[in-house]
Amino acid sequence: MMHGMVIRTANECDRDGIWEIIREVIAGGDTYVFDPGSSREEMLDYWFSPEKYVYVASEMSSQETEVVIGTFWLKANQPGLGDHVCNAAYMVSPEAHGKGIGRKMAEFSLEEARRLGFTAMQFNFVVASNTAAVRLWQSIGMEIIGTIPHAFRHKTLGPTDAYIMFREL
Amino acid sequence: MMHGMVIRTANECDRDGIWEIIREVIAGGDTYVFDPGSSREEMLDYWFSPEKYVYVASEMSSQETEVVIGTFWLKANQPGLGDHVCNAAYMVSPEAHGKGIGRKMAEFSLEEARRLGFTAMQFNFVVASNTAAVRLWQSIGMEIIGTIPHAFRHKTLGPTDAYIMFREL
Repeated sequence: MMHGMVIRTANECDRDGIWEIIREVIAGGDTYVFDPGSSREEMLDYWFSPEKYVYVASEMSSQETEVVIGTFWLKANQPGLGDHVCNAAYMVSPEAHGKGIGRKMAEFSLEEARRLGFTAMQFNFVVASNTAAVRLWQSIGMEIIGTIPHAFRHKTLGPTDAYIMFREL
Repeated sequence: MMHGMVIRTANECDRDGIWEIIREVIAGGDTYVFDPGSSREEMLDYWFSPEKYVYVASEMSSQETEVVIGTFWLKANQPGLGDHVCNAAYMVSPEAHGKGIGRKMAEFSLEEARRLGFTAMQFNFVVASNTAAVRLWQSIGMEIIGTIPHAFRHKTLGPTDAYIMFREL
């Protein structure tokens, strides 16, 4: 199904595809902090802010058109004397779930973070009720190093904990 | 000694005084992630970035001139569905250490964060070797909820842990 899936640096032409994924992912209000009503402009400004390395996963459609099915970014989690620890965020198109795209992006991102010179990876805000994500991160070596009580206002579950996750690279 | 110490919202006229404090505090490379060589412009842009509420502590000098002796800011630690948790950073002029200014700013900031509608406070990066700061935060109710291994490249101690601290408001 995923013949020709590639992961590559994002460019200006990917903005429509990335926004479509962000829009669908944040609509649920269950996995990311962004307000489900956030505009295209504010989300793309955030996703492409200057300090970030942005990537997409894409595949060829049956019409031989490239379709963006996932996106992630890497950046230093702190400036200056803390900039050896990488931070990242990942989103997969809801239509492409179950194909292992999240895992492929995660594995790629660890290699890429190493290549960029980072020596550790930290996630600041993994929603505790998002067990599929937590399990995926744990399977690539990320450990829960802290729990922020009630840090997330989950759309259906209400106040929900968020995890801080970390691994050396 | 500290007659007339006031804590108030910062304004444009405080930029020189704030920069002087930032410059002296980051020079040590032992408590904050900012590169000791950071420029005035980049640090003031950071300190006064639009999403922040910025404050100063000041006192009257013997010449009846107002002198800035401390500064801190408050902001939401996350956007959208996580924006009820406040984040903050504090700096005290090295010449004014030992006068309890850090504690006064900390206590003021908790009240101010409540007034602004925040329901919790989180510090993302407290350098573990900065025991005076850690003790101060613990004394105002902040608890260590996580430790980031070797997250800080301390100028003299080398790789040093950083704490994530949290309390409800």
